[in-house]
Amino acid sequence: MNDLAKRAADNLRLVREKKPLVHNITNYVVMNYTANALLAMGASPVMAHAQNEVEEMVSLAGSLVQNIGTLTDDWIASMISAGKKANQLGKPVILDPVGSGATTLRTNSAKKIINETKLSVIRGNASEILSLRDENSATKGVDSLHSVDEAADTASSLAKELNTTLAVTGVVDLVTDGARVIRVLNGHKLMEFVTGTGCTATTAIGAFLAVDKDPVTAAATALAYFGLAGEKAALKATAPGSFMIAMLDALYEITPEVLEKESRFTI
Amino acid sequence: MNDLAKRAADNLRLVREKKPLVHNITNYVVMNYTANALLAMGASPVMAHAQNEVEEMVSLAGSLVQNIGTLTDDWIASMISAGKKANQLGKPVILDPVGSGATTLRTNSAKKIINETKLSVIRGNASEILSLRDENSATKGVDSLHSVDEAADTASSLAKELNTTLAVTGVVDLVTDGARVIRVLNGHKLMEFVTGTGCTATTAIGAFLAVDKDPVTAAATALAYFGLAGEKAALKATAPGSFMIAMLDALYEITPEVLEKESRFTI
Amino acid sequence: MNDLAKRAADNLRLVREKKPLVHNITNYVVMNYTANALLAMGASPVMAHAQNEVEEMVSLAGSLVQNIGTLTDDWIASMISAGKKANQLGKPVILDPVGSGATTLRTNSAKKIINETKLSVIRGNASEILSLRDENSATKGVDSLHSVDEAADTASSLAKELNTTLAVTGVVDLVTDGARVIRVLNGHKLMEFVTGTGCTATTAIGAFLAVDKDPVTAAATALAYFGLAGEKAALKATAPGSFMIAMLDALYEITPEVLEKESRFTI
Repeated sequence: MNDLAKRAADNLRLVREKKPLVHNITNYVVMNYTANALLAMGASPVMAHAQNEVEEMVSLAGSLVQNIGTLTDDWIASMISAGKKANQLGKPVILDPVGSGATTLRTNSAKKIINETKLSVIRGNASEILSLRDENSATKGVDSLHSVDEAADTASSLAKELNTTLAVTGVVDLVTDGARVIRVLNGHKLMEFVTGTGCTATTAIGAFLAVDKDPVTAAATALAYFGLAGEKAALKATAPGSFMIAMLDALYEITPEVLEKESRFTI
Repeated sequence: MNDLAKRAADNLRLVREKKPLVHNITNYVVMNYTANALLAMGASPVMAHAQNEVEEMVSLAGSLVQNIGTLTDDWIASMISAGKKANQLGKPVILDPVGSGATTLRTNSAKKIINETKLSVIRGNASEILSLRDENSATKGVDSLHSVDEAADTASSLAKELNTTLAVTGVVDLVTDGARVIRVLNGHKLMEFVTGTGCTATTAIGAFLAVDKDPVTAAATALAYFGLAGEKAALKATAPGSFMIAMLDALYEITPEVLEKESRFTI
Repeated sequence: MNDLAKRAADNLRLVREKKPLVHNITNYVVMNYTANALLAMGASPVMAHAQNEVEEMVSLAGSLVQNIGTLTDDWIASMISAGKKANQLGKPVILDPVGSGATTLRTNSAKKIINETKLSVIRGNASEILSLRDENSATKGVDSLHSVDEAADTASSLAKELNTTLAVTGVVDLVTDGARVIRVLNGHKLMEFVTGTGCTATTAIGAFLAVDKDPVTAAATALAYFGLAGEKAALKATAPGSFMIAMLDALYEITPEVLEKESRFTI
């Protein structure tokens, strides 16, 4: 655990030193919030989705974040082009399969991205992650119908099957590559009342992947940092509007030292 | 009036209990704010606009919110597909004809949606609503050039003509289905300085329509709740940035009991 | 300097009196923030990008703001249509070439807009502005690699070459039409931690251009106003989330008198 806490601090320090460019192909709802979160963390955000630009843009980036929250076929095509280019260049890619399981388009698009590109990490709620396995799951919008505990064993075997690292977020977050399993305990219940906290957690992982080549530790430490920002925000705000602003403040204010001391993991 | 205040409290209670999924096909400017407003109310937002997804998504939803604020022809086509599916399934649909009357595309698109689908409620400012009748109105962007009072008689006859419920918002909000007329007095002048307060009022009506089958009471009580959130926010904030955040807080903090006591209607 | 400070106050007064409609064809990330900023200033925002609407919409507007932050070819085509119409009608147009120099699509699109339409002002960071001259500049996302000082002489000659006014923003902002040079000293370092502050500065210039026919004074005074809002926000907030909200408050709260007293220019 101490190793992970130290790794979290190191990763945050590296993000602030290197200010990695994080290329996002993400949904309209969260673009502003995730860009602000990346800046608050110390990273450098860019949003670009044009077919005739994404390969060049991802070449400049430290990592690629893909999110299907407001998908159309042409955006998925751009994600696949960008993902293939990132793969060629050895840059890490993370997918947020928002609402996978809820509609055929979302489930099929997530699976298409998974099949055609190599992903370092997939982050979703338990229902979204479970939907990547079979089509019997029916998510209620982007909310989870299954607990993190239900998903744990499945996640581990699914991670092996898909040859990636899965980050299943909920009250407790679970990160696994099929061999290692890390649980992240940081977080706060008000985060559910802010749109795009899941998407922004994904982006935080994207920033950490740009400085930490191990997807398991990058994902777990980013989720600890993001969850801790929720805890800090809850010390200042008791309702979702002021809470979402306080979270941006906290992402900026949390030092590597505080993160090392207050991040909470179990294996 | 007491009946309406009680209905407002009941509707808010039901939204928080049932957490209805509200499917939004809305404009880019307000997507984040309306999603956060729906979460703060206790509802569950989803934004989805792809032609090959909207019918399946609306099937999962409690109501459909359509907003032409940043329209293009393909988004209008998606709105019509989603609206027809919602009609088949008996799910309520609400239209926000943003800027109708200002440009030909907006006026024609609003009329096309009205002609091809059955709407439970149309919410707009007086000028937008008036533009649905004839093309002589010229709105200045999305602002109103006509008072609510001017629009009252017209709204009532237009509601009959269009066989829908109209919610005309302004200093005083007017809700009418041609037979009944309710005026909602809640609100605050700082709301005009926050982009998308009209759009978010529409979304609030969408959430209430998912739990209240009567479009007139759903619209009137949602507008009272939303206006009261403005009043509560104004107790904490005197400028638009902090006001818009305080409104999200207020949507979360207002209890059914407070809403019953402080909602203000006249007939 | 006193003349400029007085001009700043007059421009702000005129924006609040005339409430000009500012037509934005801008990026998804900043749409909400720039719309809120325009409302806070006292102007009236509209966002519209459809090919079959932009000419009609810009005819209703006091100025046109173009921003290539999340560009695709069809949006660029809309910008050119809208720009040509604005030119015909004598309405001022401002371009924000976000990320020009970073990718071929951005550089080429910015140059295409510059070649095919007449721009009153182009606002960018030094790297973006420099990229309009030759293709050897490589920006890191939307961040600047070159100082404002490096860019000063180039900007002046480039302004002449392009026959426009350039507003090069950074720690100190530089405004030049090739003949006159004004430096604006207002601003705060936390502005770098909020996404779209550059884009919003552009929009502020758009609002001022609607009431001030001289692009040099319109740009310089708008930047002083916007920078002063950053200074005022920093009195209330020490982290980027609360700072970005405090900036909206400050745009609303700054009076013409305060702006006259606290705007800082050098020539």
